[in-house]
Amino acid sequence: MEKLTQLRARMKAQGIDAYIVTGADAHGSGYVSENWKTRQWLSGFTGSGGLIVVTRDKAGLWTDGRYFIQAEKELVGSGIDLYKQEEPGVPTYQAFIKSELPKGGRVGFDGRTMALQSFDALKRQLNDLDAQYTYDIDLVGSLWTNCPQVPNKPAFAHELRFAGLSAQEKLALVRGEMVKKEIGGYVVTALDDIAWLLNIRGSDVPYTPVVYAYVFITASQAHVFIDAQKVSGIALDGFTLHPYEGFSEFLCNLHSIKGKLYFNANKTNVLPGEAIPKSLPVNRNANDDIIALLKAKKTETELANIRNAYIKDGVVMVRMFIWLEKIMQAPGELNLYEVDISRKLIELRQVMPDYISDGFSTIAAYGANAASAHYNPGTQGAKIERDGFLLIDTGAQYLDGTTDTTRTIPVGPLTDEMRRDFTLVLKGHIALAAAIFPSGTTGSQLDVLARLPLWSEGKNFRHGTGHGIGYVLCVHEGPHNIANKHNAVALTPGMLVSNEPGMYKEGEYGIRTENILCVKEINETGYGKFFGFESLTCVPIDTSAVEWGLLSDAERGYINTYHKRTYEILSPLLNEAEREWLEKKTREVQ
Amino acid sequence: MEKLTQLRARMKAQGIDAYIVTGADAHGSGYVSENWKTRQWLSGFTGSGGLIVVTRDKAGLWTDGRYFIQAEKELVGSGIDLYKQEEPGVPTYQAFIKSELPKGGRVGFDGRTMALQSFDALKRQLNDLDAQYTYDIDLVGSLWTNCPQVPNKPAFAHELRFAGLSAQEKLALVRGEMVKKEIGGYVVTALDDIAWLLNIRGSDVPYTPVVYAYVFITASQAHVFIDAQKVSGIALDGFTLHPYEGFSEFLCNLHSIKGKLYFNANKTNVLPGEAIPKSLPVNRNANDDIIALLKAKKTETELANIRNAYIKDGVVMVRMFIWLEKIMQAPGELNLYEVDISRKLIELRQVMPDYISDGFSTIAAYGANAASAHYNPGTQGAKIERDGFLLIDTGAQYLDGTTDTTRTIPVGPLTDEMRRDFTLVLKGHIALAAAIFPSGTTGSQLDVLARLPLWSEGKNFRHGTGHGIGYVLCVHEGPHNIANKHNAVALTPGMLVSNEPGMYKEGEYGIRTENILCVKEINETGYGKFFGFESLTCVPIDTSAVEWGLLSDAERGYINTYHKRTYEILSPLLNEAEREWLEKKTREVQ
Repeated sequence: MEKLTQLRARMKAQGIDAYIVTGADAHGSGYVSENWKTRQWLSGFTGSGGLIVVTRDKAGLWTDGRYFIQAEKELVGSGIDLYKQEEPGVPTYQAFIKSELPKGGRVGFDGRTMALQSFDALKRQLNDLDAQYTYDIDLVGSLWTNCPQVPNKPAFAHELRFAGLSAQEKLALVRGEMVKKEIGGYVVTALDDIAWLLNIRGSDVPYTPVVYAYVFITASQAHVFIDAQKVSGIALDGFTLHPYEGFSEFLCNLHSIKGKLYFNANKTNVLPGEAIPKSLPVNRNANDDIIALLKAKKTETELANIRNAYIKDGVVMVRMFIWLEKIMQAPGELNLYEVDISRKLIELRQVMPDYISDGFSTIAAYGANAASAHYNPGTQGAKIERDGFLLIDTGAQYLDGTTDTTRTIPVGPLTDEMRRDFTLVLKGHIALAAAIFPSGTTGSQLDVLARLPLWSEGKNFRHGTGHGIGYVLCVHEGPHNIANKHNAVALTPGMLVSNEPGMYKEGEYGIRTENILCVKEINETGYGKFFGFESLTCVPIDTSAVEWGLLSDAERGYINTYHKRTYEILSPLLNEAEREWLEKKTREVQ
Repeated sequence: MEKLTQLRARMKAQGIDAYIVTGADAHGSGYVSENWKTRQWLSGFTGSGGLIVVTRDKAGLWTDGRYFIQAEKELVGSGIDLYKQEEPGVPTYQAFIKSELPKGGRVGFDGRTMALQSFDALKRQLNDLDAQYTYDIDLVGSLWTNCPQVPNKPAFAHELRFAGLSAQEKLALVRGEMVKKEIGGYVVTALDDIAWLLNIRGSDVPYTPVVYAYVFITASQAHVFIDAQKVSGIALDGFTLHPYEGFSEFLCNLHSIKGKLYFNANKTNVLPGEAIPKSLPVNRNANDDIIALLKAKKTETELANIRNAYIKDGVVMVRMFIWLEKIMQAPGELNLYEVDISRKLIELRQVMPDYISDGFSTIAAYGANAASAHYNPGTQGAKIERDGFLLIDTGAQYLDGTTDTTRTIPVGPLTDEMRRDFTLVLKGHIALAAAIFPSGTTGSQLDVLARLPLWSEGKNFRHGTGHGIGYVLCVHEGPHNIANKHNAVALTPGMLVSNEPGMYKEGEYGIRTENILCVKEINETGYGKFFGFESLTCVPIDTSAVEWGLLSDAERGYINTYHKRTYEILSPLLNEAEREWLEKKTREVQ
């Protein structure tokens, strides 16, 4: 409450009627470093998604269904009310501002923390109010006395044997596409796009090994805006280095350009966005984001590396399951907590070659906890009992790939409904994995395959079916996905996508089965090219939870083939006891 | 060639450099009356889709793959070249005009025959050329000395027992939606929308029982622009009649309006479109087309009638198949032509109660002819032999419904490939028909279900999977459909949609199996409402072409249930011999 009082005093001094705190960083990163956690500092709310609006007499946090319960607890005493996004009767934050702002009132926010696209949407909504904007101040930052340091650890080169193409080759590829799209200047602001282009990795952001930087490319020049110390010793031939802070001013001084200036308005924050001279012709269409598309299609070298990373992570998962099974089968009371599993996974991964870090905080969710999407067990998590399901969603960053796997295993007796739901999820997972589809097909067209078995019984899951995945980059990567919401990006060979249908029963259990798939060409006929999926994930699916009567011969065949391949790939890397365990888990079912 | 010379003389007199002949009528109707067939008069081309551009020294017809062969033949001697749409290297007609038109040149066309949306697209393309436009002249009409009369037969009332709701009730529904969408004035230009609203039907257009008219609705007024003679004797309480020709001038004189003026720019031609005062705020979003959406969701009364129409048409189809089988089985040479089947269908339908006309020209296509989509057999068609497949796509207008059914039957030995393709098409048909899906699902999401069995073998069909269908109106009706192209309109209870996957082998055979489905609510769970389909079509599927090993138990079960229901519904209306035939055709398979 005291923080809010201080903030309001500063707002008053600046003539600001409504101040927005997004908690984002300057690059729209999925995870942000500690110094950017302004939303958390102001409100105490630790969830990864949300937005605060403070007016002279009201204050609200907008967040989604994943965080309702957590936010209610954490906001106590903050003076900030919870606004449950998309619940009936709850205004959007824009509508809230519209109803609270006086005519001609002033809205303030730190321009670095809002994408230009969001600012444009806000301006449209407040159009009738003659609203004024101040976005070159960081009021929360000015109050935050113990704000953590901006990360300043050195970056490192992602070696050519991992990257496959040199930064210069990637630059040539990008410039080739710029010519095709008549783009004379390309503003690159997303950290993973920049890390891909420069073949550098770092640790400025948790879980994603990227470095704070901006890039600007023309036909003959390539400028990198970065703390020079971070890349000292890394060869960046063909790129001109500038201080990170100089980016907006650089854009401001662009006079003329051949063709159009490109930036992705979803990824570019308001400060550089507004710095671009209004006289320049721009293209801000997300579908023309050259690096997003190039980076999504993994090269053969990248794929060979990624396959290897998934084999290593398969070995890790097998070892974790064996460790877990031993604990479960030991006599006496269980003294096992959810977080023990996350710790064990880190321990097992750390001995693997080229391990960097977790790719995200492992979700080990027991029983009813698994019914909350994005469950966070905190420092210890729930105690695991010998009953029902345990869901484990985990992944790591290796120098040769980013992994992401979910398995749900029975740790005790299951109800008929649990078995049925597990099997329906598996049927959806198989239908998607086995799909063959013509060139031009999008993930939105295939999404139904993963859902139909659940839909047939009046069930569903309230998240996407699949996301793209980066290469030693973000575990969630665009531009393609598999979801019921329309996405025009076609699935093309080399793209990775997760296949993760689930089923969640509030207060009881959660089930999800996730493999990472790679789009590959199957054949070419008179109807054009046809594509299908290669499963990169090599982790057995616990078939003891399957209700076999619900599976067709073809579905049984899919599981047998998947398990046979998993055994063949992993067994040479296992010791005899491990091999024996895997042989049992992957044994053919008739 | 002489016509072209005359046209060019008139173009010169009017200072027109490029003249466009679309061949459309003033309402964008799917079929047009003879007097609108300007494209055919000028070129000799009789296909149902195409567009002609004439410049001072060039002339071209643009048409799609359905008509390439036919157009090449028919254009001989016309002086008009064929431009094959969407073939590599072939410019669009807009690009052609752009390359031929001098700077500041003038483009002419009959504004009644082009939708405002198409005109806007043309203007955008020619933006750099400072093009001028003349659209208030009909140069072809001025040359066409023996132009057929504008249809002037009387309309008739679609009685309340068929319509379900009175025109006044429909008007109240429309006005309710106008309030919700803040539409103060609603311009209605599509003939089927108008026929639905006024509960009138007529014969101004072939196959679709509609009447040339325009409508304009406000909160307190409703104006109909129509030849008064056509509706003399039909009560239209609450509507003010005006001459058909007065519509554009009426719009021109609109001064102010509460809320926005709505028109669908895809359905409204350039003359009324340009007549709307630029000072009025407009909404031209196709998704807000109130009547299109209201009319798509059939009421219970309409559905009861439609079910009856499909039963009658099922009896017709059974009788046609029995007649055909007798001819096929008679000894000696066959003397049967494709058109004989169309004629027989008309003969059988004419004795049914409330028959109006064919709903479209029946496609009876033997052998390789069925591989051309929209095959037109002309006056006699091919001779049918005792070999391979015969495809029959047919439908009728009854006062209680519009039908559309396709069946493919073997008339002699089949190859293994024919059987396999027939079965793959059937699998797709069943997968779609049996789908259960949550509220909000669109046809584009379900499309994959009908295609996946073909895709799995590198095959596909190059047309949509399903179209909406009118109620004693257009056999193709929006706004929803089932297709791989994204369409944001969700399938909701009461909507009808066809289910017609196919497989076509150029030069050999064509297969299509089509039923009309009605979206219905299945149940409501914690995940919301779930919908499925009721099959309205009651026509047996010829299972002698099925390769049973390819079908699952569930798929066999679907066929048995469908056939059992078909027998139960149709048999009371058949004589003993017919019943016996149907019993055999619908017998359960194990």
